[in-house]
Amino acid sequence: MRKSLIEEPRTGDRFSGPAERFRSVRRKTEELCAPLTPEDMMVQSCEEASPAKWHLAHTTWFFETFLLREFVPDYKPFHPDFYWLFNSYYNAVSDQPVKKLRGSFSRPSLDEILAYRRHVNAAMERWIEDGVSDEAAQRVELGLHHEQQHQELLAYDIKNAFWSNPLHPAYREGALPSAGDVPPVKWVEYNGGLVEIGQGGRGFCFDNEQPRHKVHLEPFALATRLVTCGEYLDFMRDGGYERAELWLSEGWDTVRAQGWKAPLYWFEADGEWRVFTLRGAADLREMLASPVCHMSYFEADAFARWAGKRLPTEAEWETAASGLPVEGNLLESEVLHPAAAKDGEGLHQIFGDVWEWTASAYLGYPGYAALPGALGEYNGKFMVNQMVLRGGSAVTPASHIRSTYRNFFSPASRWQFSGVRLANQVN
Amino acid sequence: MRKSLIEEPRTGDRFSGPAERFRSVRRKTEELCAPLTPEDMMVQSCEEASPAKWHLAHTTWFFETFLLREFVPDYKPFHPDFYWLFNSYYNAVSDQPVKKLRGSFSRPSLDEILAYRRHVNAAMERWIEDGVSDEAAQRVELGLHHEQQHQELLAYDIKNAFWSNPLHPAYREGALPSAGDVPPVKWVEYNGGLVEIGQGGRGFCFDNEQPRHKVHLEPFALATRLVTCGEYLDFMRDGGYERAELWLSEGWDTVRAQGWKAPLYWFEADGEWRVFTLRGAADLREMLASPVCHMSYFEADAFARWAGKRLPTEAEWETAASGLPVEGNLLESEVLHPAAAKDGEGLHQIFGDVWEWTASAYLGYPGYAALPGALGEYNGKFMVNQMVLRGGSAVTPASHIRSTYRNFFSPASRWQFSGVRLANQVN
Amino acid sequence: MRKSLIEEPRTGDRFSGPAERFRSVRRKTEELCAPLTPEDMMVQSCEEASPAKWHLAHTTWFFETFLLREFVPDYKPFHPDFYWLFNSYYNAVSDQPVKKLRGSFSRPSLDEILAYRRHVNAAMERWIEDGVSDEAAQRVELGLHHEQQHQELLAYDIKNAFWSNPLHPAYREGALPSAGDVPPVKWVEYNGGLVEIGQGGRGFCFDNEQPRHKVHLEPFALATRLVTCGEYLDFMRDGGYERAELWLSEGWDTVRAQGWKAPLYWFEADGEWRVFTLRGAADLREMLASPVCHMSYFEADAFARWAGKRLPTEAEWETAASGLPVEGNLLESEVLHPAAAKDGEGLHQIFGDVWEWTASAYLGYPGYAALPGALGEYNGKFMVNQMVLRGGSAVTPASHIRSTYRNFFSPASRWQFSGVRLANQVN
Amino acid sequence: MRKSLIEEPRTGDRFSGPAERFRSVRRKTEELCAPLTPEDMMVQSCEEASPAKWHLAHTTWFFETFLLREFVPDYKPFHPDFYWLFNSYYNAVSDQPVKKLRGSFSRPSLDEILAYRRHVNAAMERWIEDGVSDEAAQRVELGLHHEQQHQELLAYDIKNAFWSNPLHPAYREGALPSAGDVPPVKWVEYNGGLVEIGQGGRGFCFDNEQPRHKVHLEPFALATRLVTCGEYLDFMRDGGYERAELWLSEGWDTVRAQGWKAPLYWFEADGEWRVFTLRGAADLREMLASPVCHMSYFEADAFARWAGKRLPTEAEWETAASGLPVEGNLLESEVLHPAAAKDGEGLHQIFGDVWEWTASAYLGYPGYAALPGALGEYNGKFMVNQMVLRGGSAVTPASHIRSTYRNFFSPASRWQFSGVRLANQVN
Repeated sequence: MRKSLIEEPRTGDRFSGPAERFRSVRRKTEELCAPLTPEDMMVQSCEEASPAKWHLAHTTWFFETFLLREFVPDYKPFHPDFYWLFNSYYNAVSDQPVKKLRGSFSRPSLDEILAYRRHVNAAMERWIEDGVSDEAAQRVELGLHHEQQHQELLAYDIKNAFWSNPLHPAYREGALPSAGDVPPVKWVEYNGGLVEIGQGGRGFCFDNEQPRHKVHLEPFALATRLVTCGEYLDFMRDGGYERAELWLSEGWDTVRAQGWKAPLYWFEADGEWRVFTLRGAADLREMLASPVCHMSYFEADAFARWAGKRLPTEAEWETAASGLPVEGNLLESEVLHPAAAKDGEGLHQIFGDVWEWTASAYLGYPGYAALPGALGEYNGKFMVNQMVLRGGSAVTPASHIRSTYRNFFSPASRWQFSGVRLANQVN
Repeated sequence: MRKSLIEEPRTGDRFSGPAERFRSVRRKTEELCAPLTPEDMMVQSCEEASPAKWHLAHTTWFFETFLLREFVPDYKPFHPDFYWLFNSYYNAVSDQPVKKLRGSFSRPSLDEILAYRRHVNAAMERWIEDGVSDEAAQRVELGLHHEQQHQELLAYDIKNAFWSNPLHPAYREGALPSAGDVPPVKWVEYNGGLVEIGQGGRGFCFDNEQPRHKVHLEPFALATRLVTCGEYLDFMRDGGYERAELWLSEGWDTVRAQGWKAPLYWFEADGEWRVFTLRGAADLREMLASPVCHMSYFEADAFARWAGKRLPTEAEWETAASGLPVEGNLLESEVLHPAAAKDGEGLHQIFGDVWEWTASAYLGYPGYAALPGALGEYNGKFMVNQMVLRGGSAVTPASHIRSTYRNFFSPASRWQFSGVRLANQVN
Repeated sequence: MRKSLIEEPRTGDRFSGPAERFRSVRRKTEELCAPLTPEDMMVQSCEEASPAKWHLAHTTWFFETFLLREFVPDYKPFHPDFYWLFNSYYNAVSDQPVKKLRGSFSRPSLDEILAYRRHVNAAMERWIEDGVSDEAAQRVELGLHHEQQHQELLAYDIKNAFWSNPLHPAYREGALPSAGDVPPVKWVEYNGGLVEIGQGGRGFCFDNEQPRHKVHLEPFALATRLVTCGEYLDFMRDGGYERAELWLSEGWDTVRAQGWKAPLYWFEADGEWRVFTLRGAADLREMLASPVCHMSYFEADAFARWAGKRLPTEAEWETAASGLPVEGNLLESEVLHPAAAKDGEGLHQIFGDVWEWTASAYLGYPGYAALPGALGEYNGKFMVNQMVLRGGSAVTPASHIRSTYRNFFSPASRWQFSGVRLANQVN
Repeated sequence: MRKSLIEEPRTGDRFSGPAERFRSVRRKTEELCAPLTPEDMMVQSCEEASPAKWHLAHTTWFFETFLLREFVPDYKPFHPDFYWLFNSYYNAVSDQPVKKLRGSFSRPSLDEILAYRRHVNAAMERWIEDGVSDEAAQRVELGLHHEQQHQELLAYDIKNAFWSNPLHPAYREGALPSAGDVPPVKWVEYNGGLVEIGQGGRGFCFDNEQPRHKVHLEPFALATRLVTCGEYLDFMRDGGYERAELWLSEGWDTVRAQGWKAPLYWFEADGEWRVFTLRGAADLREMLASPVCHMSYFEADAFARWAGKRLPTEAEWETAASGLPVEGNLLESEVLHPAAAKDGEGLHQIFGDVWEWTASAYLGYPGYAALPGALGEYNGKFMVNQMVLRGGSAVTPASHIRSTYRNFFSPASRWQFSGVRLANQVN
């Protein structure tokens, strides 16, 4: 089973450029599933999550629905019901099964889903090879970025699935790299003033990154690295989860209602904190230099208040990140967990490791217009009650992230790989 | 996969008597799973249900926990964590994972669960073959009846799993037998007086069937057959689900809160009612003579009130059923759905087809004593807020049912195979 | 305000017999409200409760709806909307406001409700004085018993209202009588056999007390007195609320979900248990001889299991109580709380003090028929998921209780005055 | 009762300036309660609401807690428990009763609360008369603005209380002024550029209005008047509540979960829409020119999308409103409902009528710092999951509102007086 996922016979080197990019992204999803059994791919362990099998199907559905059905006149759909069965939330396409039902989709079987992928891949590759219009190519790129988003979600969902299993199995063998020491925080100062943010160039971006527009910023400073588990443990030991004055009101309600006492995936065993990762559980004492991860906005905000600092706005973050190379501990590093910062000048860990909570609500930029049609539902309809995160994580594909990229989650959510970089005023 | 479930190599004919009975019941559970994929065995689609894989493991756990660990000194448990992992609700044994987590047990894999079954089977068979005490033999019998209960639950849970799947797959191929006509209801009268109910003999029974005791009954009459889908449709067409006066107060609240308009598994398609079964969906017009099934106590009670009759008490039912042969449309018939009554004298459909709701609350008989130790949790702790059902269903194993058998469900529950036989006063 | 409630000018002594009984019961309701302010009469502090003002109106509605509107042709209703506004649950009469809305009925004002009472009282008294048919007289009696039930509910609801107020005000001045010592429990044995229970005579009873019918009982014994707070404290100190094996499964779930650690109205202050009563809070150490009160069925059942005894069935209780005089610590004693048992032969505390949980589910007796029409909703539609209680409490009017009287509450409910008398087998 | 609320003997004209301002604001709260009975003041009809009596007490608590206890050494608190009993949400002061309990505070009685007000008023007036420091004067002003906020909340809560009463009583006699015709919408254009918003002057403001800071705006246009009921009816008739594509995802979920079909307080009677107001219900056909009110952010946003326009940001709104006189249909007009726009040049209805939803999330301005100590909980801890509204409503006191004022509610909330002014891009 596992082999079949990743060792599809290559059909030669004739695909290059767009087709090879397509093939490579699609293969990556299946590679991520390679350590999973068909049973693992059925688990849906929290309300944010979907089963791995569903991700395999839905990403395929995206290409079938928005590419093949729209652009390829003689395309024969793989199955008459998949049109609505694997729709996630596009009301303009069809009704959808309610999300929590995804865990009951034992049929179609994994074999059938893999056949679905092959069917759609073959049609896509054929079509791409024949050459496609600019509009279509852009749509393909959207589909690939969509698939990469689901690769990241897959990592979140598998982690939660294995965490919910009382036996706490590991997704990947091999221990995490030793965290070592962590350099002290320093501060990089920025002048602010009238800056521009948002994507204005020709590369791919989501509609929510546009239009590029002017923002006025006061002078500000950013921490050179992410907040570590050790620093967060200090917050906890200083009564962080028991002191109402550190929290937003809704955050405090959440802490009490959920009984939060630590970030998600931290647990106590024999009087010591341990941290569950995609490589199994490890002793917190060996991870003190690692960036703290799986924090809600409420926790990020409370930590910043406790530290006497604040979270950066997304405009501050983007201004600082703009022009930096997209490199870091991303999915390709195969660490699958945030790693300790290195020493040296300037900002570290801007890309990868953990998504960085910002103090900015997720709203449309001035002049924002959603894509026309059903694809307009991709981003725009979520622009309320969410906060923006920036920079990608240890499970974000490198070709998926950029300085203008706006991720967003609701403030109480913490199954994603999210952490904190502090900001500060400049006097 | 499916083959391995049902074609384990027989180890010869040397097992007879208790060992063969053990082997036969255990094999039946696996046969019931034969049409299922490993993914099907992961689904947990309603709060009453458990995944099929869990049933395979838990029934094995029962033998390991209550037989091998207690009676076989040198028994080596299969896995150190299964002791608590597959405990259902025996607090005296260990803590248990919360029920809704069972759907996240992708690990241990199905293969491992099947190996667990083989391990426990081998130890059990070896031990039984060596000859066991009467006490132990009775405990084995309890374990086998426990397994048979889970065979029936498996059928309920698979049906619900496939129902929750938007594609509504069928568990078993082949159409239901044609329902044909239904004989008119007649009434069999009984004198009542001081009768005895409960198990007083030497055969196996659960603790809740004892002690045998005296009950005084007024004269009563029982319908010769079960209420049919056609009769229930009359109730619906007469506004059954819209008339508060037909319902218990809590039933009426449930009807409105749940939006009930028909029994579970009935659905409308193209303006006609269809009924989902383990053999797929069928047109209600072809099932009018079939017993109505998947009714809550609330619906059974409302129907009886509408019909100007009532439900029988469990003492009335047992008095009538006592002495009748245990035969009918039970699991062995492989119909897997209630079947239309035949014509002829006397009571029909007493055993099999559907569990018959009684007007009796599930309480201990006078002098009832639960089994000692953890097994005392088997029945006694559920004696509140449940109603008694009698007679078994189309998915009850024949060797599992008897006239004294007391099944019980909460009044709003309807995923089980439950229906109605009417009773009446005698003037 | 308070004066106007209880000092309505008497219109002379010309009313005697039925009219005087009517007047006396009606006045009692108002007397119970005398210590309350208009604001107190607005509070609805738990889902079982209604505001006192609503009780004043609803009991009046009962007479207007089922007596004056049906029997008095020229009766002019007080207000056109009260017909549906103060309907509790009689679907055959009209739709009703949802229960939780009752706390928002600031209008009609208390003054208007009192005028409503005077208007209906005047019409009722006029009509009764003129002489009424036997059928009508029986209906009047039903209305008066209905009002007495609400007098008792008023006491429950006021107690809960003052409990929910963080200042814990007392409803009535004056300390409880000192509890003193408690006599040891003895056991009264009964032969059982074929007995009759239910109301067969000519006095008033509710439909659920009929028909009188035969029941077969095994020999049994009843405790001479109620379980005391001191005995219940022993249960608590023996880990009663932490030991799953003592509880019904649903009871155990309730204990954990609700965080129960003691009966309702017990609270800890400065390391000591205190008990809130209608006369304010008192130290538990001074109440050890008092019957334990405000227990759910789950707690009563767990206590009995811990004590190695059981709860009586309602047939056992009625057999023992039959023929005993209806006297004890009832509403007229004005103690408003259960009082310690006296020493002496035979059963004590059978009537009054606390309602005694029985092991019997609340179901229709054999041949039970609800009253015709809307009044059939009075009792019958609640016959599921409730347990029977017997004997009345310290807030039950003496003329309201009798040995055949069947009260009922759901097993988790405990805002009512309910406690435990143990039963035992006889060898 | 009512008289005592509003006709406290004036103590002469010696109070002027701050003391008179204090007295005048405090009297206004009581005047708002004048049409209410003590029973009305008990009602708490939705989770956002508090009883009127609680508002009377809590506003007094604010002065006692943050002024008298802090600044007046010999002040004798009125009651030892009021310190925590009437605390709303200031964790740094004390624990608080959970909000839903406020409806059970029948004690202390209204009389006692009024005595509490007199006690605190007397102490405050004495102290103010003696002359207070600038810091203290500013704190007094904060207390008065706090009281004015509660005056507005009182209007919301009374409206909801009377709405929840099935008899729908009117708070104030006298019909609404006739709405007449409505002028067509025109657009006022603004250049944008680098502007400043926030309070920079010396007048009173809340901490959340500071610091004044620069914002860059693109050119924009604002509608000259508010959206009317008639225009909103067009949206409804065009399927507004049935078309997913018009809604934010969370808004659409809310529409379906709540069954929204119209703004709050609209109801159908005899096939026609009616609108419940503080002056009773009126026919929608006579209110078509009135601003639509009691809309959630979700509805405001959906309407704007349907209209092909958008909501203004708070910076756009403030830029446009800056410098306009604070006049309009505010609390002092005693209309108590939004009124139709007049014809004429420029922006109408900027102040009063309805709070205008903006497209801005409620977050701290750059450099925002909460007040020190417990008063820091006033605003800052609510800065998540809320949207900003601007301009005040028909129940906002005129001296309470200003162009920099930031109100905020969660996007699903609609018991407040909230409506829509559209914005548009300028090409």
